[in-house]
Amino acid sequence: MANKIAPLGGFPELLPAARVVEREVVASLSRTFELHGFANIETRVVEPLDRLAKGGEIDKEIYVLRRLQAGDGDSDSGLGLHFDLTVPFARYVLEHAGHLEFPFRRFQIQPAWRGERPQEGRYRQFTQADVDIVGVDVLPFHHDVEVMRVMVDALDALPIPPVSFQFNNRKLIQGFYRGLGLADVTAAIRTIDKLDKLPADRVAALLVSDAGATPEQAQRCLELATIRVSDTSFVEQVRKLGVEDDLLEEGLTELAAVVEGCAAGGHRHVTVEANLRIARGLDYYTGTVVEIFMEGYERLKSVGGGGRYDALASDGRTTYPGVGVSFGVSRSLIPLLADGVLSGSRAVPSAVLVAVVDEETRDASTAVADALRARGIPCEVAANAQKFGKQIRYAERRGIPFVWFPGSPGVAGEVKDIRSGEQVAADPATWTPPTEDLRPQVVTEEKKQ
Amino acid sequence: MANKIAPLGGFPELLPAARVVEREVVASLSRTFELHGFANIETRVVEPLDRLAKGGEIDKEIYVLRRLQAGDGDSDSGLGLHFDLTVPFARYVLEHAGHLEFPFRRFQIQPAWRGERPQEGRYRQFTQADVDIVGVDVLPFHHDVEVMRVMVDALDALPIPPVSFQFNNRKLIQGFYRGLGLADVTAAIRTIDKLDKLPADRVAALLVSDAGATPEQAQRCLELATIRVSDTSFVEQVRKLGVEDDLLEEGLTELAAVVEGCAAGGHRHVTVEANLRIARGLDYYTGTVVEIFMEGYERLKSVGGGGRYDALASDGRTTYPGVGVSFGVSRSLIPLLADGVLSGSRAVPSAVLVAVVDEETRDASTAVADALRARGIPCEVAANAQKFGKQIRYAERRGIPFVWFPGSPGVAGEVKDIRSGEQVAADPATWTPPTEDLRPQVVTEEKKQ
Repeated sequence: MANKIAPLGGFPELLPAARVVEREVVASLSRTFELHGFANIETRVVEPLDRLAKGGEIDKEIYVLRRLQAGDGDSDSGLGLHFDLTVPFARYVLEHAGHLEFPFRRFQIQPAWRGERPQEGRYRQFTQADVDIVGVDVLPFHHDVEVMRVMVDALDALPIPPVSFQFNNRKLIQGFYRGLGLADVTAAIRTIDKLDKLPADRVAALLVSDAGATPEQAQRCLELATIRVSDTSFVEQVRKLGVEDDLLEEGLTELAAVVEGCAAGGHRHVTVEANLRIARGLDYYTGTVVEIFMEGYERLKSVGGGGRYDALASDGRTTYPGVGVSFGVSRSLIPLLADGVLSGSRAVPSAVLVAVVDEETRDASTAVADALRARGIPCEVAANAQKFGKQIRYAERRGIPFVWFPGSPGVAGEVKDIRSGEQVAADPATWTPPTEDLRPQVVTEEKKQ
Repeated sequence: MANKIAPLGGFPELLPAARVVEREVVASLSRTFELHGFANIETRVVEPLDRLAKGGEIDKEIYVLRRLQAGDGDSDSGLGLHFDLTVPFARYVLEHAGHLEFPFRRFQIQPAWRGERPQEGRYRQFTQADVDIVGVDVLPFHHDVEVMRVMVDALDALPIPPVSFQFNNRKLIQGFYRGLGLADVTAAIRTIDKLDKLPADRVAALLVSDAGATPEQAQRCLELATIRVSDTSFVEQVRKLGVEDDLLEEGLTELAAVVEGCAAGGHRHVTVEANLRIARGLDYYTGTVVEIFMEGYERLKSVGGGGRYDALASDGRTTYPGVGVSFGVSRSLIPLLADGVLSGSRAVPSAVLVAVVDEETRDASTAVADALRARGIPCEVAANAQKFGKQIRYAERRGIPFVWFPGSPGVAGEVKDIRSGEQVAADPATWTPPTEDLRPQVVTEEKKQ
């Protein structure tokens, strides 16, 4: 059957078996976040435009709402769809502060919208998973270690390829530049940020021309930016560069604590690094910063990131500092599903298809199904009383592993494993499928081979 | 602390403890739907405007999207936010038909948007839970019984007040009117639909003036519409009205099967009725119709509804008949939460607060927390090494039932139930809280008393 409707670019939709994977990923993330005491919230999807549009690059990607038949003079509602989960969370904290206990740990897994050009890993509607801790006036540094460790644990539990957490610290960068005597620290950060697009000597030249650095200072900046280790040995490497500054020292101590805290505990497929060229742009970050990369999917750039912001939100009297990290659920999953790295084992929840002998005895089949459901076994009753061979093929097409043939009064029913062909007498009040057949599973590429 | 930000009318947001209730309701609905073999999908939130705006009453409530900085000549994207889950589901079926197995059973729990005037139970953003079964060309009637029974089971499992499923059948109504010799069946249905706003004699007069009925026919229509029973005795009551028609007979048989099928199985707090004035407007329904009401909340009107539609979707060659029913999650839960009928037992997932003796030994507290988490016990570590009394009050304010005091080398830790004050020596590798304390619970008004 030909598809009569073209898909809408940038708005990917999952078929039921792929949705099995997405739901399991969301459930797994939620389990980990809750084990660490993070409460779930959802925010409304709209915010007042003046909260969304701050004059930045993102503004032109904001979707604005208007009512279809609104009056001409008042065509916009003044509302737009949120483009991340940080802006609405900051507003939520301000709006509901009187009803929240601080430090407030929250996780939020929702879609966001950006009207950008669609490409692999970049969608106009995409789901993110955010964890943040927010305090009032002050938020002790140990929460940086805590929240990053939560995301490390959460991604380590997912059935995705290995991921790498690459940490840096804005105090370290700023302190180093300041201690080095750079006049324009901001310009230097902006220039160093270009290292993933330009060769090193070109960046060095820009540091001289745009950030007012001497060639020697530019060289030292590059040396700092190339330090990348998976332990705390960066502290000695930075010290060898001979720059002294209090803020630099504070940043070194914090970064070492984050790297040590996140590397502890023996993870399955998460690696942790200090990568001193990570800056995460010029925005609100004031300490810890992180970007997350997925092995084999470096072309997506980061699949997550975050950091510390000393003013997540403010109402003019009270400031709410925060630290958090976001994981791009759609950005990582949709390419993995498209590549067949992940898939769902079947498209339906049913572990059992209860066959129907004829329409007159459909009630008997429904009774078997009810008995199985009462014991937590998902099942469905065949749609038509076709020949059993056809009913078995109906189950096969859906990936349903078992077909139940109801008995008649005095005759026991039988259940067939349609993969092995094995068929045994069975009682719906006691029979149980193997645990791995009970619900659809996430199948990874290696498991398939 | 005063709220500095006013809430946005029609866009309710839940505090964390209320969100516990919403999540448990969504999880419980999902469990039931999956036990019956329904697969979950999510659709994108936008549809092309020509799919949404069909010239009906709803059109003026549709939210249209435009990009904030789009060119003047092309200000709209041609996309709007969906206002229910049926329109996007019908489009999903057409778009993905080649990849779906029919009959296709799906459930979908997502928000929808309508720019209507906000009031209790009516919101501009609201979450619905829909179950539907869709076939190709034909869909046997037994699926009507199946899908309605699924929603009966699903709502019976929820911690909400008693609900009533009120069924009717469009074949029954149309057949009766036709057999009665009414000229304008559609006008008669539209008029009878006003029975919940106008007195019976006024409706009778309208049947004469607007639907071309004789006073005797009008009287018979009213007699039909007042039949309301909780078993299949309506069949005899209708027959006594002396109207004969094949379609009427078919409708009677179908309605009796739905009422019997849904009443079977012994439900806790769902009642099932045949209510012959239920029509659900003039739209696409062609057989079974249902409206769901919640006891004590009749002012919300129905909290759900649905029915059979012989042409859910069509691509011009193939027609996809369907039958389904929708439950208004926001419409029912938000009033229940506001009234305190339902609440969450605590605002955080943590069952245990691990106290911190001093900042130097925070790692020891983190190790206790990790050991508890490894065994599935949600916990958090105290934010500050305050006096223990203050740390206990911190747990109290969050509703965390247990506080753990870490031991030191050679000294066992202790755990205190802060409700009873009982404190015992405990090992994080073996101690387990009572099951009911492990996660936040939904508290119902009666349980509180």
